[in-house]
Amino acid sequence: MKTTGTDCQYEMIAAQDALELIQGKWRIPIVLSIVYGNKRFGEIRRAVSNISPKMLSQELKALEENKIITRQLYDTMPITVEYSLTPLGASMRQLLVELLNWGTCFRKALIDKNN
Amino acid sequence: MKTTGTDCQYEMIAAQDALELIQGKWRIPIVLSIVYGNKRFGEIRRAVSNISPKMLSQELKALEENKIITRQLYDTMPITVEYSLTPLGASMRQLLVELLNWGTCFRKALIDKNN
Repeated sequence: MKTTGTDCQYEMIAAQDALELIQGKWRIPIVLSIVYGNKRFGEIRRAVSNISPKMLSQELKALEENKIITRQLYDTMPITVEYSLTPLGASMRQLLVELLNWGTCFRKALIDKNN
Repeated sequence: MKTTGTDCQYEMIAAQDALELIQGKWRIPIVLSIVYGNKRFGEIRRAVSNISPKMLSQELKALEENKIITRQLYDTMPITVEYSLTPLGASMRQLLVELLNWGTCFRKALIDKNN
């Protein structure tokens, strides 16, 4: 982390981009599902509780546009579609681990405050 | 990270809480400003470009309510007010570092895509 000037402002904007990408209810669970080896639409859908097919399609498309996942078609009968993390997507892992870990600490602290 | 069941769902909710806390334009720069040693309202305001006094007050209050910072009054003339990170706030550091680092990679990848 740099403390002053243009580099710092650039990093702040970059952090906002990252936050915007992972915001919402679904994207982190979807990425984690693929990290854990789920590749096909139906597998991801079962792994991400309560997501509708329409929402899953939409979120997978957004993640693909943002170069987090790739979509691969296989010439089988019927056609097989598999999703994988790109190197950029795979590089999110440490950020997601930190978010889950710190989020858990934060939630516990808030619950303690209200008891 | 756990892969299944209640623990996993709990972590997802916790991650959403964390995201909600750090969303928006100002909170990460404010927390970083205090990490870097700015303690007083005016110092934080100068460190966080373009924030209005009203917005800074509002965001400091929200961070205080969420146990990220504490506000300490000193019996000087005039009264001195200093903000510090709580242990919970200080524990965000690694998450913020990951967010800035990964955000920078993500932004570069998106810019490369569009060139």
